[in-house]
Amino acid sequence: MNGPSLALRQRSLGDPSAEFPLFPPLTRGCPATSTDSLAYPLEITYDYAKVDRRLFAQEPGPDLARWSPLLPPLEAPTLGEGGTPLVEFGEVYVKDESRNPTWSHKDRLNRVAISAAVACGAPGVVVASSGNHGASAAAYAARAGLRAIVLASADSPLAVQAFVRAYGAKVVSVPVEARWPLLREVVDRLGYHPVSNQTVTHTGHPFGPEGYKTIAYELFLQLGEVPAAVFTPTGYAELLYGVWKGFVELRLLGLADRMPRMFSCETAAGGPHARALATGVPAAIVELGPTDAYGIAGTVGGHRGVVAVRDSGGEAVLVTDDELRRAQRDLARQGMWQELSGAAGVAGYRRLRRDFDGPVVCVATSSGFKDAGVGSERYPVVENPSLESLTA
Amino acid sequence: MNGPSLALRQRSLGDPSAEFPLFPPLTRGCPATSTDSLAYPLEITYDYAKVDRRLFAQEPGPDLARWSPLLPPLEAPTLGEGGTPLVEFGEVYVKDESRNPTWSHKDRLNRVAISAAVACGAPGVVVASSGNHGASAAAYAARAGLRAIVLASADSPLAVQAFVRAYGAKVVSVPVEARWPLLREVVDRLGYHPVSNQTVTHTGHPFGPEGYKTIAYELFLQLGEVPAAVFTPTGYAELLYGVWKGFVELRLLGLADRMPRMFSCETAAGGPHARALATGVPAAIVELGPTDAYGIAGTVGGHRGVVAVRDSGGEAVLVTDDELRRAQRDLARQGMWQELSGAAGVAGYRRLRRDFDGPVVCVATSSGFKDAGVGSERYPVVENPSLESLTA
Repeated sequence: MNGPSLALRQRSLGDPSAEFPLFPPLTRGCPATSTDSLAYPLEITYDYAKVDRRLFAQEPGPDLARWSPLLPPLEAPTLGEGGTPLVEFGEVYVKDESRNPTWSHKDRLNRVAISAAVACGAPGVVVASSGNHGASAAAYAARAGLRAIVLASADSPLAVQAFVRAYGAKVVSVPVEARWPLLREVVDRLGYHPVSNQTVTHTGHPFGPEGYKTIAYELFLQLGEVPAAVFTPTGYAELLYGVWKGFVELRLLGLADRMPRMFSCETAAGGPHARALATGVPAAIVELGPTDAYGIAGTVGGHRGVVAVRDSGGEAVLVTDDELRRAQRDLARQGMWQELSGAAGVAGYRRLRRDFDGPVVCVATSSGFKDAGVGSERYPVVENPSLESLTA
Repeated sequence: MNGPSLALRQRSLGDPSAEFPLFPPLTRGCPATSTDSLAYPLEITYDYAKVDRRLFAQEPGPDLARWSPLLPPLEAPTLGEGGTPLVEFGEVYVKDESRNPTWSHKDRLNRVAISAAVACGAPGVVVASSGNHGASAAAYAARAGLRAIVLASADSPLAVQAFVRAYGAKVVSVPVEARWPLLREVVDRLGYHPVSNQTVTHTGHPFGPEGYKTIAYELFLQLGEVPAAVFTPTGYAELLYGVWKGFVELRLLGLADRMPRMFSCETAAGGPHARALATGVPAAIVELGPTDAYGIAGTVGGHRGVVAVRDSGGEAVLVTDDELRRAQRDLARQGMWQELSGAAGVAGYRRLRRDFDGPVVCVATSSGFKDAGVGSERYPVVENPSLESLTA
């Protein structure tokens, strides 16, 4: 049942008739449809007719290898990613992705992307990241015996700097304008496999969202049905698109008869997918204002988010830092301490205030340990506390 | 199958003929056998004849409620604790408990202990803890709608201070000599349920280790057999004893025909269970030297650890901070960033260097985010890095 990969080809999101061999992964976007101002990502096609439906009689436990027929070849070893719990939170469900090997959703992407690096025979991987993605890529590279170079940002929270360095990668902070040329040089001259975006609008790694698909498979099994709506924290929309694609496949395989609406929850300080959808363009680039939600704060959007929202009948929702902080606080008051960015799904659901005809899932992406400001305040020291003061 | 609790009574570890009703939980040790210098803990008995063996045909997924017949009544709601992955690490397996709701094994204990507080109708819980236990108790109390008071240590790592506070508990740091009297006062005068030890040698909450039992159930299903040896990071030995008891039950239920040897992995700076075993006493109190492994560093041992090691034919293993750091580093170089204390199982296995006739499991208890020193060092900033410097 968990047999070899049935992945066939790379297919352009710019023109579905433009297909390419599965390898090498086209990490600079679709060569047929991209332009100087707009890059189209690729997705992976599979031989769906050969999928054994008993795949979906499995328990939704850890290790993406349980979905191997519907993923690109998994050449990198597992750290037990996925299989995360679905936890009730008021009238919605929270998919708690902080329960992954490096405590964020990124582990699903990196199991697949680092597998591509192994499959390509690359001596290492290179990533530009200030947090979860860099640490996750470093962990999976280490596990697979590959070197990793992380081009990081000097203003990352200090606990996150320790996190990214823990896995033995070469982590350096370079000036922001030097980061992308350097990444390209490491790829071109050292033959390292890139697991970061290299295009004008976001395309990222073509295999990455395939890892996120598994969230849809798990939700389908955990709920016993397709949810009515899914709200995801959205930076580049790889997660949003991946979850959407998983549900598309469940319908295509005849296992599900409906689809969720997909809601792209973006910081109000930026919001490139909201902009693209509002203006009717395939992908947008925006100015970025101040925000503490650094995990979803970017200027560059991609076409994947537009596809997922548009084709699912969803929306982009912009959330302020105050709304994020309230969602973060309320999640913690129910026992789930999420990174500020990780609470964007819940914040987006609350901002929209809409009734849905079925279960609603908010994906929560990452642990609260990763926020800016963590560790900036000490416990109050009380020499001789009264009992009254303890219950006040 | 996941029916009501079959828990019957509390039974003394000092004298198995001394039994007590299931409620109230005897949070100050066995009243029949404890003395001024030695306190005996209690364990829980069950109506094993009524256990449906199909319980062990389940998948070992999250939410302890799947084991409800073999646990005290679970009155507190779940956060999806347990169901953690078993990850290969060289010739051993690592049970990665950093994948729990608050990223440590303590969530298994607190699901059960906070349930006791709910069952008792307590208005809140009180805990003395500098880290994982306090945060976990606060998370489960918040989830159950109970207040929580955490009496903490001012020298906890700053990221851990943020963690413990995140769940809305009243967290105060009081002088160490004031902590225990204050805890007792909160219990006696406010009626709060204690989830910390209150006795001269450690007894803790009588329901706590029952939560840890589920690790044994999961290991049995994940391996398809009983491991030959289990190495656990050991402070008070509630984890060690709980895992041992789970395997005892599997044999008692006729599901397993052998038992693992249990290895208590303690800091060489202290090591009360190693001392008790070496000197043939039921529990010992030791001096504590300097160590960074604050999660397992204590002066006070308990009788549970002695029972688990002795009855299983195991040993206590003392590990130095250097050995812990090497284990921590090597785990991270395989993609698992553990707290220093959390690496004690692996460090203990390596120090012992023994061949076992079957699988060996090292329990890894907690995320690396919780260590002292996390966040003390910044990324190197390189203005113009050469490619050579990136691969050096």
